[in-house]
Amino acid sequence: MEKYKKEMDYSYTFGIFPTFELINNKPECVIKIMIHEKLKITDDTKKLISICKEKHIEIEYCTKQIEKIVDKENTLIVGVFKKYTSVLQQNSNNVVLVNPSDMGNLGTIIRTCLGFNIKNIAIIAPCADIFNPKTIRASMGAIFSVNIKIYNSFYDFQNQFSNNNYYSFMLQATKSLQSLTKEDKKLPFSLIFGNEGSGLDKNFLDIGQSIIIKHSKNIDSLNLPISVSIALYEFSK
Amino acid sequence: MEKYKKEMDYSYTFGIFPTFELINNKPECVIKIMIHEKLKITDDTKKLISICKEKHIEIEYCTKQIEKIVDKENTLIVGVFKKYTSVLQQNSNNVVLVNPSDMGNLGTIIRTCLGFNIKNIAIIAPCADIFNPKTIRASMGAIFSVNIKIYNSFYDFQNQFSNNNYYSFMLQATKSLQSLTKEDKKLPFSLIFGNEGSGLDKNFLDIGQSIIIKHSKNIDSLNLPISVSIALYEFSK
Repeated sequence: MEKYKKEMDYSYTFGIFPTFELINNKPECVIKIMIHEKLKITDDTKKLISICKEKHIEIEYCTKQIEKIVDKENTLIVGVFKKYTSVLQQNSNNVVLVNPSDMGNLGTIIRTCLGFNIKNIAIIAPCADIFNPKTIRASMGAIFSVNIKIYNSFYDFQNQFSNNNYYSFMLQATKSLQSLTKEDKKLPFSLIFGNEGSGLDKNFLDIGQSIIIKHSKNIDSLNLPISVSIALYEFSK
Repeated sequence: MEKYKKEMDYSYTFGIFPTFELINNKPECVIKIMIHEKLKITDDTKKLISICKEKHIEIEYCTKQIEKIVDKENTLIVGVFKKYTSVLQQNSNNVVLVNPSDMGNLGTIIRTCLGFNIKNIAIIAPCADIFNPKTIRASMGAIFSVNIKIYNSFYDFQNQFSNNNYYSFMLQATKSLQSLTKEDKKLPFSLIFGNEGSGLDKNFLDIGQSIIIKHSKNIDSLNLPISVSIALYEFSK
């Protein structure tokens, strides 16, 4: 066990909450649970230990190991899991993130998607590391309840979801989210968002319906997790 | 000049973007602009320097000073400004944050408020430090374009805005944001949100109309900046 690196074929959940999400939703990927000697026995930790026993998940008491790999001092529970790949459900409503670069944003978006019942997320590479513990922490473990597939190009995504209704979110769009009627929001949908800094390339103006979330001229743009969340809210109404 | 501390009566903007917002919107509070020797002359930096001259703002070239106070190595421009207080406009639509604790969240919310033309923000103490450079950075300088007033209690806020229509966002509410009609969203409004972890106290169920943003059972709650943004979107439609 060493400090997390992208190249590793395993990763970590730091803290009890994402570790619960891991063992409940992806028990087959868990390698072991590590516990720090300072961990206090509470109802939550008892529950965690009992689920581990029930699912035959190894528990290791290894304070030094934990201190070697965590990034915050007060992390007393660490889950170790094998990285895995997922497939997206055909004909699903989904969110497409083109080149997202910030792990905190990515985790927040994953969690909000789950909050609006979007369980299929496509990510176009290059992109932030979905399995970095920072992404997992920002998702609060929601990452283990959704399907995420990384595509090398948007074209690859299109091939699988040629029947979806595409909505490209970009500042150059003329149609506003605010003006969409119920009929404009067609299922199954793919809501497409660009990189934090550069947004979607202007080619996306020709891909499906381009949409802008109207905002005041006092700011350049809404930030990415905010835009995705507002779009999810509107499309799930 | 020393590393930022809450007790200081001045603070910093780190980087060119928030520094622009500072000198354009609160020139009377600027003490000076500090420039690192590695700063490259671009159109943006030329523009910044020219605005400083025009507004008689002192520019200091002081590499070591900057390196002593910044938290990220590549910060080459720092604005130094005196902290100030603001008053909220009477009868304004506003957002009320009760005990927000995270500076990143606070900055993101300030920026999103400005994005939806809400320029009056009430914060009920105790709360995160609005002038910490982290808050300013997360707001991308939007903090200099809005009025923020810190109240010691919600009661103090109510005294000033007794005619506003209150909407308390909380998980215990029965009325959903999604179900509000145009008539339900009365002006001027105060959208009230609780702390990141604990939300609003249940006493707020009796303050104005309590509202829940309906989400799936797969997550406990939407995060604070996401909730505020969705509410602002809906109320500004």
